[in-house]
Amino acid sequence: MKEPVLIVGSMAFDDLEMPYGTFNDVLGGAATYAAISASSFAPVRVVGVVGEDFPAAVLETLASRGVDIAGVERAAGKTFRWHGRYAADLGSRETIHTALNVFADFHPKIPVSYKTSPYLLLGNIHPALQLDVLAQVERPKLVVADTMNLWIHTERKTLRELLGKVDVISINDEEAKDLTGHGMLRKAAEAIRAMGPKRVIIKKGEHGAALFDDDGVFFVPAYPLEELRDPTGAGDSFAGALLGVLASLGRTDGAAIRQAMIIASTVASFGVEGLGPERLLTLDRAALGERLRAFESMMNYGGPLPTLP
Amino acid sequence: MKEPVLIVGSMAFDDLEMPYGTFNDVLGGAATYAAISASSFAPVRVVGVVGEDFPAAVLETLASRGVDIAGVERAAGKTFRWHGRYAADLGSRETIHTALNVFADFHPKIPVSYKTSPYLLLGNIHPALQLDVLAQVERPKLVVADTMNLWIHTERKTLRELLGKVDVISINDEEAKDLTGHGMLRKAAEAIRAMGPKRVIIKKGEHGAALFDDDGVFFVPAYPLEELRDPTGAGDSFAGALLGVLASLGRTDGAAIRQAMIIASTVASFGVEGLGPERLLTLDRAALGERLRAFESMMNYGGPLPTLP
Repeated sequence: MKEPVLIVGSMAFDDLEMPYGTFNDVLGGAATYAAISASSFAPVRVVGVVGEDFPAAVLETLASRGVDIAGVERAAGKTFRWHGRYAADLGSRETIHTALNVFADFHPKIPVSYKTSPYLLLGNIHPALQLDVLAQVERPKLVVADTMNLWIHTERKTLRELLGKVDVISINDEEAKDLTGHGMLRKAAEAIRAMGPKRVIIKKGEHGAALFDDDGVFFVPAYPLEELRDPTGAGDSFAGALLGVLASLGRTDGAAIRQAMIIASTVASFGVEGLGPERLLTLDRAALGERLRAFESMMNYGGPLPTLP
Repeated sequence: MKEPVLIVGSMAFDDLEMPYGTFNDVLGGAATYAAISASSFAPVRVVGVVGEDFPAAVLETLASRGVDIAGVERAAGKTFRWHGRYAADLGSRETIHTALNVFADFHPKIPVSYKTSPYLLLGNIHPALQLDVLAQVERPKLVVADTMNLWIHTERKTLRELLGKVDVISINDEEAKDLTGHGMLRKAAEAIRAMGPKRVIIKKGEHGAALFDDDGVFFVPAYPLEELRDPTGAGDSFAGALLGVLASLGRTDGAAIRQAMIIASTVASFGVEGLGPERLLTLDRAALGERLRAFESMMNYGGPLPTLP
């Protein structure tokens, strides 16, 4: 029996202004992306909140993938909604409007049956809520947290308290620089590790991701796509798949995390090929396995390096 | 006896406005950086031009590293000079002034003794001159060419002719997009391969480099530095070391190129730690070997990937 992953975070609708058109009511939210990705590998439990407008069919889709949705609260009001506009090359985006709606009063309540979840992903919510989740559960075998610039700038003290209590922080390059003031990733990562997390994963979008831990630095490239359609949720897909793979392996060691990062980067590469999570929902093991072989090839230099000529 | 590398390109002085100070008369030029890097691994022959102001001591330094400088022409006038200003994070730069000086009339003359050089690096000069060099030599075992946006925009036809005659093109990500009109690197690389080169190396600066060839895609990360001092010449150091390693191995196959890319990225990582080529000139095998071990660790995921959980 594979061990379950508990995911806490936002569930949302996104209105996406893409260079190729505008799309409203796209399924979104960090917990949504992470749960869909993680559920390709392990049982998933989700704690989040949706409004009265959230379709039962979406929850049924999640449930059909082995996602336990007992922790998804349905509150009076509307679902969290993010309206974003992407640049022509999809390399950057701006927020046009954020309507927190029911998410404004989100206080994660961890169901009793979830409290012993061995793998925990704290999605990007207020760090006080992330701490509150940790206070409600038995110490998991592995806690991975995400955060964002907003909390780095407005809730630094609480964020620092959180960092003292997580095993892995997943953060993008700009956030790592903001959090530490260091422009060089190695220095930023070491400064974050000094705040608590044993391992720091720095996400670099189309340039892949880097892990910094006691064993050094490890890089996983991003798969070079023929076409990029929607980068929304790529980091969440990555984190979800990472936890799902680790849970399915029942491991938390550095080698397992390195292997899981490759699989997670592969999953995320499929995610950005579709609008919202649509491609993740149709992803099968054959396609995933085939692209995984390409990842091995991308990192394989044909045996040991020659002794210096 | 190791086979020699022939390098053709610019030799220059750079005036560098860095965020930490302004430095004049810094040794520069693509051929200079490439020759210094290549000469850590194999005998090097250089064809370039310098002015009357170019110090004999610099040529002696090159010669002491095993660089044959018989092909360096000393012309009446001043040496090529580039004046650049770097952004605060060293991530971008602008050209303040370019004084071609003796480089304006550069017509590479390949000494008879160089004409059978098995490894050839065509540094970033006018593509008509790159073609002229090819016309002067017996077909080398491996021809690697560099280019730049200027030629992509002004000499596209000649550049296309050159591309039909080289084995490997080394180009940065923006140049690859400019040359092909494709925003996605995979498409850009395949479009360039369709123009002739069997292998395309796309340089991504702090994000490493990617090779596209018949065997797929291969990525080498950039070493995450504690401190970056001067990115000038990083691509040239990379190309020079690449050719030097291949010449020392006497190989041109895909596995050798992959391994050489890792060593070349390591060499380039040292180069940008110093102003101009100063760090390259003091680089010893112990330091290089130690950092190379870090590269292996950065790309090593601890054995075969698990079958999909």
